[in-house]
Amino acid sequence: MTAPKRTADETRTLIVESAGKAFATRPYREITLKDIAEDAGVSAPLIIKYFGSKEQLFDELVDFTSAAEMMFDAPLPKLGERLVTLFTRPLEEYRPLSMNILSMSGAGEESSAKLRDNYSRQVIDGLADRLTGPDVRLRAELVLSMLMGLALMRRRMMQNQAAGSSAEVVATYAPLVQRLLDGATV
Amino acid sequence: MTAPKRTADETRTLIVESAGKAFATRPYREITLKDIAEDAGVSAPLIIKYFGSKEQLFDELVDFTSAAEMMFDAPLPKLGERLVTLFTRPLEEYRPLSMNILSMSGAGEESSAKLRDNYSRQVIDGLADRLTGPDVRLRAELVLSMLMGLALMRRRMMQNQAAGSSAEVVATYAPLVQRLLDGATV
Repeated sequence: MTAPKRTADETRTLIVESAGKAFATRPYREITLKDIAEDAGVSAPLIIKYFGSKEQLFDELVDFTSAAEMMFDAPLPKLGERLVTLFTRPLEEYRPLSMNILSMSGAGEESSAKLRDNYSRQVIDGLADRLTGPDVRLRAELVLSMLMGLALMRRRMMQNQAAGSSAEVVATYAPLVQRLLDGATV
Repeated sequence: MTAPKRTADETRTLIVESAGKAFATRPYREITLKDIAEDAGVSAPLIIKYFGSKEQLFDELVDFTSAAEMMFDAPLPKLGERLVTLFTRPLEEYRPLSMNILSMSGAGEESSAKLRDNYSRQVIDGLADRLTGPDVRLRAELVLSMLMGLALMRRRMMQNQAAGSSAEVVATYAPLVQRLLDGATV
């Protein structure tokens, strides 16, 4: 019996997932294409065929364009609830958090600079462009601080000991996120 | 000319600072006492004399008792402002964030479990004990999510490109933290 043949898209996804896992848990400079290939169950030359190099695979992973589109896909009055719901959800499968990739990519390295620039432009500015009123960039950055902190606290720090159900977290936290989105004076 | 003689307390502080830097930026298992000793400008046997072993030095570093006392040292109505001020401040010297130490200590390792338990008991419960009203543990965890996210966003992700002055961050963010502390309905 042979394994069912995968489509090119499925193979790309497998490779990106294995790469995300590697880049979020081990130092960038230590990771080889061979490690990623083994975890994905493909060959290293296949990764080169699809992505070019380790650097280009990393670039793919820190391109947040489609993640930002997905995250911000709600009318503004509902966006606080959507975002907190997304970041409270326990992760069914491994999904790297950009902050973990940043930790592992090494301070001052080119890879960190790329991640930082993309995050700033695609995620923070992407949200700021949706907001009105004063200090939109600051408010967007603080919304994302709230979400990043929530995900790290629940998924990495407290894990299965995290307090409250997802519904309780959304009920308590989303109205505060929404206030920042609305620019409401507290 | 000889260097001025350090007191035992100054030497301990130097060692703990070098250890914090190492544990927050490199994988736990890779770090040797010799690395920490070199960075601190002391000998490895001196670290053993003061702390016992690498494991015991790590335990010292993930004891948050005095950090929690310092953080929560304000009357409750002023605590939001105090906490946001502390976590907005750019760090003059290297100070490890517990989330960075967690990243580097390896999932499922004993060192991670220790850090997680201490953080839960000393920091989250320490704050929850100060609060009144419903869901104190959840509210304390969400306050600390907001602070952790803020520090990571400004100190690690955006760094010198972070938006707004410290005063602007405090003015915008502290009232939201205070609402969680007060248990105010938004």
